[in-house]
Amino acid sequence: MITDQSNSRDPLRAALIIIGNEVLSGRTREANLTFIGSRLATMGIRLCEARVVRDERAAIIAAVNQFRDQYDYVFTTGGIGPTHDDITTECVAAAFGLAVNRDPQAVTRLRNYYGPDELTDARLRMANIPDGAELIDNPVSGAPGFRLANVFVLPGVPRIMQAMFPGLAGKLAGGAPIISRSIKAWIAESKLAEALGRIQFEYPDVDIGSYPFARENRFGTTLVASGSNTKSLADALNEIERLLRAREIEFSVEARAKPE
Amino acid sequence: MITDQSNSRDPLRAALIIIGNEVLSGRTREANLTFIGSRLATMGIRLCEARVVRDERAAIIAAVNQFRDQYDYVFTTGGIGPTHDDITTECVAAAFGLAVNRDPQAVTRLRNYYGPDELTDARLRMANIPDGAELIDNPVSGAPGFRLANVFVLPGVPRIMQAMFPGLAGKLAGGAPIISRSIKAWIAESKLAEALGRIQFEYPDVDIGSYPFARENRFGTTLVASGSNTKSLADALNEIERLLRAREIEFSVEARAKPE
Repeated sequence: MITDQSNSRDPLRAALIIIGNEVLSGRTREANLTFIGSRLATMGIRLCEARVVRDERAAIIAAVNQFRDQYDYVFTTGGIGPTHDDITTECVAAAFGLAVNRDPQAVTRLRNYYGPDELTDARLRMANIPDGAELIDNPVSGAPGFRLANVFVLPGVPRIMQAMFPGLAGKLAGGAPIISRSIKAWIAESKLAEALGRIQFEYPDVDIGSYPFARENRFGTTLVASGSNTKSLADALNEIERLLRAREIEFSVEARAKPE
Repeated sequence: MITDQSNSRDPLRAALIIIGNEVLSGRTREANLTFIGSRLATMGIRLCEARVVRDERAAIIAAVNQFRDQYDYVFTTGGIGPTHDDITTECVAAAFGLAVNRDPQAVTRLRNYYGPDELTDARLRMANIPDGAELIDNPVSGAPGFRLANVFVLPGVPRIMQAMFPGLAGKLAGGAPIISRSIKAWIAESKLAEALGRIQFEYPDVDIGSYPFARENRFGTTLVASGSNTKSLADALNEIERLLRAREIEFSVEARAKPE
């Protein structure tokens, strides 16, 4: 469901499906969520949910079908390699009720990358693409990802996924970037709780989060305000600073605005 | 749904709900999934799914209710601090249709930790516990987690969550540990794909995964076999080793068995 953003300041909404037993078993540290969440924010797209599922047909199909109805964009990572546990392509196709066929353009890309002698049958599996999907360029290792409607299928290897991500920019309708500013205050989180709650209530279109930390035997709280309405964001931040000054709490404002 | 494991070799099944806008926005790197997945494996419990949701009532309640029916155990991390964005406790209570009240035992723990002068109203919020819940000890910072039926509510700060985890051992019915062994083979993943698929088919109670890597300009594949049936696991591993030897592929077996 791609919504028309022209009438709305709300960011577009996205979800991520992370596919792979190795992530759930703790063998492999998940490494794509942070990258995708922050990149989407710069494009004005909010990552609203992520789901980590095993290499199991029913789980993958259910997640794809639920998310593609519920969110503007769905991204998947993992499970598009050449081995038996790589079942993402067939599952996404099944979610759409589409057949998978060898894509001549994908075969050409794989042949260019591997050379004709190294293009084994197993590697050719990576040219199996759901009918009607649009290929996503892989500048690192040949094997393309693909897009079906609002679902974007990407590899799980972070280095490759990250190299493919810029190629998506033209396919995603952006919005005003979600900007995030943080303030580091040397006070325990609980002592700000009530006042922060009030400021959050006053600025419903700004997300205010507070994250405690301990450093050099002192307690502190990082206050994060984010949103795409720059006026509200600035006002909420000013109010937080006023609060900290009034209470004579030591604090520092992060120098540079960065994506949420 | 706690299943009776006495008739079955299948591991118990768990799911994890990771709560927090900061994880989805990319601001905070998710750091609890790997720990929880691998610790559960040592107890013979398989983490089957994880969901990362925003600090939003409907999303948290829906995830708790879906998972507590579907899995033997559900763990949540995040959102049990003292500030306005900490809504996990009230959401878990709502999922069970229970009220939240100040728990005298939790108040005592907080008072012991903070001392009477520092026990602010905001901190006392952390003693609000759903009726009938059992407290989970927090040896680091006083504020307890809690258990309601098969749902275990833990903090999001990794250092604190990890310190609380050993306290769960007595509350979880274990099973045979899920053991994982890995073999590093200096060959491209695709060249093993067909043979590995055959071995996987032969040993349905062993999970065989293959994960490509590139190091020092060489391609390699880490082959991981895991399961709780030690006989099948050993047989599958032997078969993989035989395959690698027959093809004269350089490989090394990971010295020590470790949890999946």
